Amino acid sequence: MSSDSPEKMSALKGAAAPIYFGSFLVTPQVFYTTPLTFALVNLKPILPGHVLVSPRRVVPRVSDLTAAETSDLFLTVRRVGRMVERIHGASALNIAVQDGLNAGQSVPHVHCHIIPRKAADLDHRGGTDAIYDMLDGEEGDVGKVFREAGSSGSERAETRTKFPVVDDKERKPRGSEDMKAEAEMLAREMEKEPLD
Amino acid sequence: MSSDSPEKMSALKGAAAPIYFGSFLVTPQVFYTTPLTFALVNLKPILPGHVLVSPRRVVPRVSDLTAAETSDLFLTVRRVGRMVERIHGASALNIAVQDGLNAGQSVPHVHCHIIPRKAADLDHRGGTDAIYDMLDGEEGDVGKVFREAGSSGSERAETRTKFPVVDDKERKPRGSEDMKAEAEMLAREMEKEPLD
Repeated sequence: MSSDSPEKMSALKGAAAPIYFGSFLVTPQVFYTTPLTFALVNLKPILPGHVLVSPRRVVPRVSDLTAAETSDLFLTVRRVGRMVERIHGASALNIAVQDGLNAGQSVPHVHCHIIPRKAADLDHRGGTDAIYDMLDGEEGDVGKVFREAGSSGSERAETRTKFPVVDDKERKPRGSEDMKAEAEMLAREMEKEPLD
Repeated sequence: MSSDSPEKMSALKGAAAPIYFGSFLVTPQVFYTTPLTFALVNLKPILPGHVLVSPRRVVPRVSDLTAAETSDLFLTVRRVGRMVERIHGASALNIAVQDGLNAGQSVPHVHCHIIPRKAADLDHRGGTDAIYDMLDGEEGDVGKVFREAGSSGSERAETRTKFPVVDDKERKPRGSEDMKAEAEMLAREMEKEPLD
């Protein structure tokens, strides 16, 4: 309600209230809102363009959402997905919800990952010692995996992949200015998307 | 239109027409339909209860869906997810769409994976030589990965995971009778779910 700094920092013109992701104030990271849903940039993107879409109401499970919240969440996922795919020159998207702790959820607030994908991002898969970091939100140090070196499936692995992987050493938390700048850019790009 | 065998084989009472997943006739595997959406059992479930939800219209990308199709698809995901979590005694769900070939999509028809998860399913993660098979639909031989043996993160890996993994050797295609029986059981269970 008051015009304190979180609102001034928002990338959204006319953002009315602070926005929380779980217990975290994320207003400066938010680039798109509807009355029921918001989209935010990621602290540790797995690949460029990795963003999150959440319901405004802080609930842990998809089954906690109303029908209206569920529809709006995934209509927003579709709209935001089109945008990040376009601006990153991608050809596909990974769309994933870790719905509950035992599914890998790190913040107990429903959130849908959207990760732009393209053939070139498979370049990260080469190399015996590369560390594979499956989609897991904020905990990059859990469950590291190595790809089998010299497997018989390596030829096919070049043409088709599954979940995004990156070198964990390069995956550092970003600064708030970096996130705010990306949020502002994405907010402008969302204005170009059809509302349907 | 005619009453030939695919319709007779359906688990759904009163199913009116054959249902296709991509180019595949899957009517006997279908356990739930709405006018825009259907849910089917999986040929190679990654974990028990792994099912798929698809739009009736055969289109490859989420962005190809209408708003009505998008809403109905994910309302169905929410409803089916509640059911499989309940009947499998699970505590979480992985919900994922591989939206396009470069995101790992194996059949060019939008489909959302729903995988019930529970703490006990992490038992599969032990063992240096275990083969990890990330969520990838029908192509179990692509991109096999090994978990790092003796990593410093192993303690935490016991308490929190990300995407489902199984021993690939145990993941065989099922027979049509097996799938039909599961579809019939799930169709009965869906009748217990609230429609909201």
